[in-house]
Amino acid sequence: MDIKGFQFSAVEAAIKKQGRKDLALIFSEVPAQAAAVFTTNAVKAAPVLLSAERIAGGRAQALVVNSGNANACTGEQGMRAARETSRLVAEGLGLPDEAVQVSSTGVIGVQLPMDRMRAAIPALVEGLTSGTLDDVAEAIMTTDTFPKMEARSGQAGGVSYTVAGIAKGSGMIMPNMATMLSFIITDAAVEAQTLDRCFRRAVATSFNAITVDGDTSTNDTCLVLANGMAGNQAIAGETPEALAFEALLRDVLLSLAKQIVKDGEGATKFVEIRVTGAKSDADAKRAAMAVANSSLVKTAFFGQDANWGRIFAAVGYSGAEVDQSLLSLCFDTVCMAKHGVFAGGDAEALGTEVLRKKEFTVSVDLGLGAGAATVYTSDLSHEYVNINADYRS
Amino acid sequence: MDIKGFQFSAVEAAIKKQGRKDLALIFSEVPAQAAAVFTTNAVKAAPVLLSAERIAGGRAQALVVNSGNANACTGEQGMRAARETSRLVAEGLGLPDEAVQVSSTGVIGVQLPMDRMRAAIPALVEGLTSGTLDDVAEAIMTTDTFPKMEARSGQAGGVSYTVAGIAKGSGMIMPNMATMLSFIITDAAVEAQTLDRCFRRAVATSFNAITVDGDTSTNDTCLVLANGMAGNQAIAGETPEALAFEALLRDVLLSLAKQIVKDGEGATKFVEIRVTGAKSDADAKRAAMAVANSSLVKTAFFGQDANWGRIFAAVGYSGAEVDQSLLSLCFDTVCMAKHGVFAGGDAEALGTEVLRKKEFTVSVDLGLGAGAATVYTSDLSHEYVNINADYRS
Repeated sequence: MDIKGFQFSAVEAAIKKQGRKDLALIFSEVPAQAAAVFTTNAVKAAPVLLSAERIAGGRAQALVVNSGNANACTGEQGMRAARETSRLVAEGLGLPDEAVQVSSTGVIGVQLPMDRMRAAIPALVEGLTSGTLDDVAEAIMTTDTFPKMEARSGQAGGVSYTVAGIAKGSGMIMPNMATMLSFIITDAAVEAQTLDRCFRRAVATSFNAITVDGDTSTNDTCLVLANGMAGNQAIAGETPEALAFEALLRDVLLSLAKQIVKDGEGATKFVEIRVTGAKSDADAKRAAMAVANSSLVKTAFFGQDANWGRIFAAVGYSGAEVDQSLLSLCFDTVCMAKHGVFAGGDAEALGTEVLRKKEFTVSVDLGLGAGAATVYTSDLSHEYVNINADYRS
Repeated sequence: MDIKGFQFSAVEAAIKKQGRKDLALIFSEVPAQAAAVFTTNAVKAAPVLLSAERIAGGRAQALVVNSGNANACTGEQGMRAARETSRLVAEGLGLPDEAVQVSSTGVIGVQLPMDRMRAAIPALVEGLTSGTLDDVAEAIMTTDTFPKMEARSGQAGGVSYTVAGIAKGSGMIMPNMATMLSFIITDAAVEAQTLDRCFRRAVATSFNAITVDGDTSTNDTCLVLANGMAGNQAIAGETPEALAFEALLRDVLLSLAKQIVKDGEGATKFVEIRVTGAKSDADAKRAAMAVANSSLVKTAFFGQDANWGRIFAAVGYSGAEVDQSLLSLCFDTVCMAKHGVFAGGDAEALGTEVLRKKEFTVSVDLGLGAGAATVYTSDLSHEYVNINADYRS
């Protein structure tokens, strides 16, 4: 991956129990244009509060992130810990405090062990000479079973640039940035408003279109840094270059989002829920999310049970406008129900075949209008219960 | 139980596979004042559509109910089946069709086996001479592990009367009447508007304050029949008699609602979630429901993990107005968090002790106002996944 002007580092600060790297740093050699989307939860972690305040200026040069501790529900002491962490990193790098973004993920309600953070930060800064983005992707994992990365290259005015991203998250995944961290870096030069607009639109149809369990966390952060070191003329406006950049960014985000669903806690299935024929796109998303979040639907996926009736029931309570006599539903290309009733014939056997696959699509047509939405989800398995019953022990 | 003028019957119509009784009848010897609350799901079962139309008149004399098949997502054929069922019962009892309420619960999307219904209805009507309310409570069970009944006696103007109720439901339990049937009978005479008002208020703080998995079904029905055969002067208005009747009705409904949660699919815990200090009662209910429906919170209950941070996170995304620095939380009388942060001391050990109990209370204070709400829920266990993965097989 050829991405100019970024350095990476990850060390073990012993915040997690497992003896794995848990403190990481991304550094841009020059100040970068920055944009971010944070959790919509009213209970926000200290690093979210601090970073959101700083990102308002639209610039950042470093990101320090720890796993193993969310630094959420930690009050004033937690805010001091987030500030001290960023100050120590800023001092090590010779940056103003405000240039440092801070991010945390892990257990809620426990104070960050600042003694261990202080001890680890010098090595973290030194490690920048030899680290890789892979190291950072591994260090931010919590219950993730694999690191999540994606990179794509594009061109602007004949100059090549790269967009690379990493993400973590496997439980508490829900639209509006649920326990999920994702950091995107690019060496492209992008004008501030254009970066912000492209990023928000890309997030809406990627990270905000996935759900594992319907919970929204206190720490979610999706951050993009564009340092311009590719040397292109800044991408701006609604030009072909800007549209191409947005498409590339969206590809990277969608790939990361899908990786998160595939790594969903205990997931054995990856399911795309497509709703069409809704009165509006918002209605379509409401219906798709109700299906994607229904425990009853998700356990039926796990059981490979072609129980389309539960899907209609979820659509029915989603709040979307619904006429039950117009509903139709397919598993991949197998039509299970039409005009609100069972399609008959071989549908049951063929539909069950589809559900035996590891990945499939559920298409629901509401028959009312042109509204459409697609969301991605997993099934609900025994393993989800295992992981979350014992998370802190 | 001394409840005048009601007769009961239950037979095996072979709609369920298990060889258990699955078709039941409740008959009042005289026309009864009736009120009902039906599912809010936009996808409504045929019997719900038919019964809702009929209840508008405020009178009913019989209820026929089957388990094993929901007669939902069954289109015109399903409507014809519901109408034929009620007509056969009406003929057997010598009643007009409109006096019969129809109710169904079970698998969605499969046509009701009318040949078996036709064959069973004569025996169902004949059985009224010897059946009991217990028989009906058993016949309406689906994944329930025990029948749910409650009865209380009261007085109006020196005349004794009884309110008795049965219910079924153990999955898809969520406010607004989620796959839950409940039938309440009383020999009290109650004026129409008073019955309707008392019933709706009692439902709001009982059946609409429980949740197992957040799904809302296509078939939910809560029906009350008051036949007046106790001989009291009709209870009416906001008199002491009406208030006493409402309290009694609420006791019966709340007992049935709690029985449903205790029988929640795979439930190993019964948890009362009390939210106080909200800006409004509606905000308090939003927060309590978010906690009660969070898969992460419920798996932590199952794991006996005193993970109060997940509860704050759920309150934070509930949509209720929240100031995280004012939040406090107790498990029974153990204060786990105050001013938004961990309470320290022995809280972790003591809180874990509380969570080892089969029943406990989670109290969350938002510190903002006088709004309060209580809801009841269960944990999320392996067994929930088992039951729902294999429901139809």
